[in-house]
Amino acid sequence: MDSTERIILGIDPGTNIMGYGIIKVSGRKAEMVTMGVIDLRKFADHYLKLGHIFERITSIIEGYLPDEVAIEAPFFGKNVQSMLKLGRAQGVAMAAAISRQVPITEYAPMQIKMAITGNGSASKEQVAFMLRQMMKIPDEAMLPWLDATDGLAAAYCHFIESSRPTVAGGAKSWKDFVRKNKDKVHGL
Amino acid sequence: MDSTERIILGIDPGTNIMGYGIIKVSGRKAEMVTMGVIDLRKFADHYLKLGHIFERITSIIEGYLPDEVAIEAPFFGKNVQSMLKLGRAQGVAMAAAISRQVPITEYAPMQIKMAITGNGSASKEQVAFMLRQMMKIPDEAMLPWLDATDGLAAAYCHFIESSRPTVAGGAKSWKDFVRKNKDKVHGL
Repeated sequence: MDSTERIILGIDPGTNIMGYGIIKVSGRKAEMVTMGVIDLRKFADHYLKLGHIFERITSIIEGYLPDEVAIEAPFFGKNVQSMLKLGRAQGVAMAAAISRQVPITEYAPMQIKMAITGNGSASKEQVAFMLRQMMKIPDEAMLPWLDATDGLAAAYCHFIESSRPTVAGGAKSWKDFVRKNKDKVHGL
Repeated sequence: MDSTERIILGIDPGTNIMGYGIIKVSGRKAEMVTMGVIDLRKFADHYLKLGHIFERITSIIEGYLPDEVAIEAPFFGKNVQSMLKLGRAQGVAMAAAISRQVPITEYAPMQIKMAITGNGSASKEQVAFMLRQMMKIPDEAMLPWLDATDGLAAAYCHFIESSRPTVAGGAKSWKDFVRKNKDKVHGL
C-alpha cells in the first residue's frame, strides 16, 4: 500500500440498525471499499445487542485495518432514555476502535450532510445519490439500507474535512482561525 | 477455589470518577476483596477518558476474574447531553465486561440503597457504614472516596438479589411472581 493511502471507517451508530462504510483515500481521491449494516433488531436482550456491536465493529476493524474512524453523532435526542441507549451503543462502538488504537472523530448529522451535498438538511436519499456520483459506486454495490450510506457518508465527510488545507495557526477555516487566535485578530 | 465461590465486580460508572468494588461470595457469606476508583478528571480528551475506562475495567477483569458484573445505572438524568455522556461511559465499561464474556446486571441507585440499608433514599455515608458492618471491613481498608463504596455496594446488592430464594415459577418476589404468572393468579 502506498504510504499516502489511508483507510477510513465511517459508522452511523443507531440502536436498531448500525450502518458502516469503508473508503480508501489516495491523495485527493477516495473510493468505496465496502459498506454494510449491523442489524440489531433480532436481539431482544440489551447486552447481547451491545455485545454484537462490539464483536462486529471489532471484526470490521481487524478485517479492514482502518487508520481512522468517523462517527455520526447526534447531540440532541427525543428524551434522556433514548440518549442513554444511544450513548451506550456509541460507547461500545467507540470501545472497539479505542481498544485497537484507532483514532475517532465525530461529526454531527448536519455537518455530514453539508460536507457531502452542500445542504445541511439534505435527505438521506440525496446524500446517497451524491456519494454514488462522487465515488462512482456501481449499481450492484448499492444497498437498500440508507443506514449503510449514512455510515459511508461519515467516512467521506471525514475525508473532506481532514483534507482541507489549513490556514496559519493550524485552523481549518477562517472562523476556526478567529476562534483559535482571538488575540491576533483585530476589530472583533 | 471452592466451586460454590464466586467473584462479583460492582461498578458505579460516573463520568468524572468511576468507583468499583470486588467481593467474594462463599455460600451465604460475602467478603470484600478490594475497592478503588478510576479518576477520569485528569483526561481533558473525551476519547482518552473512554479509552482509560476500557483499559482499567479490562485490567480489573483480567486481574480478579469476576464471574459477574453489577453496574449502578441511573435511568434518569438532568439532560440529554449528560445522559449521552453517561451512556458512553457505561457502554465502554460494559464492552470491557462483554468482551470477556462476563454477564452484566444493572441496578438502579435506589434499588442498591434499599438492598443494603433497607431505605431507598439512604445517603452514600449510610450505605458505606452498612457495608463496613456487614462485611467487617477494617478501618485501614476504607477509602476516602464514596464512589468506591458505591461500586462495592453494587456488587453487594447483586449478591443479595441473586441469593434470594425464588418462589414457584422462578420469580424472586411475590410481585415478580404475579407479573410473570398473571394467568395463575386470581382476583387481579
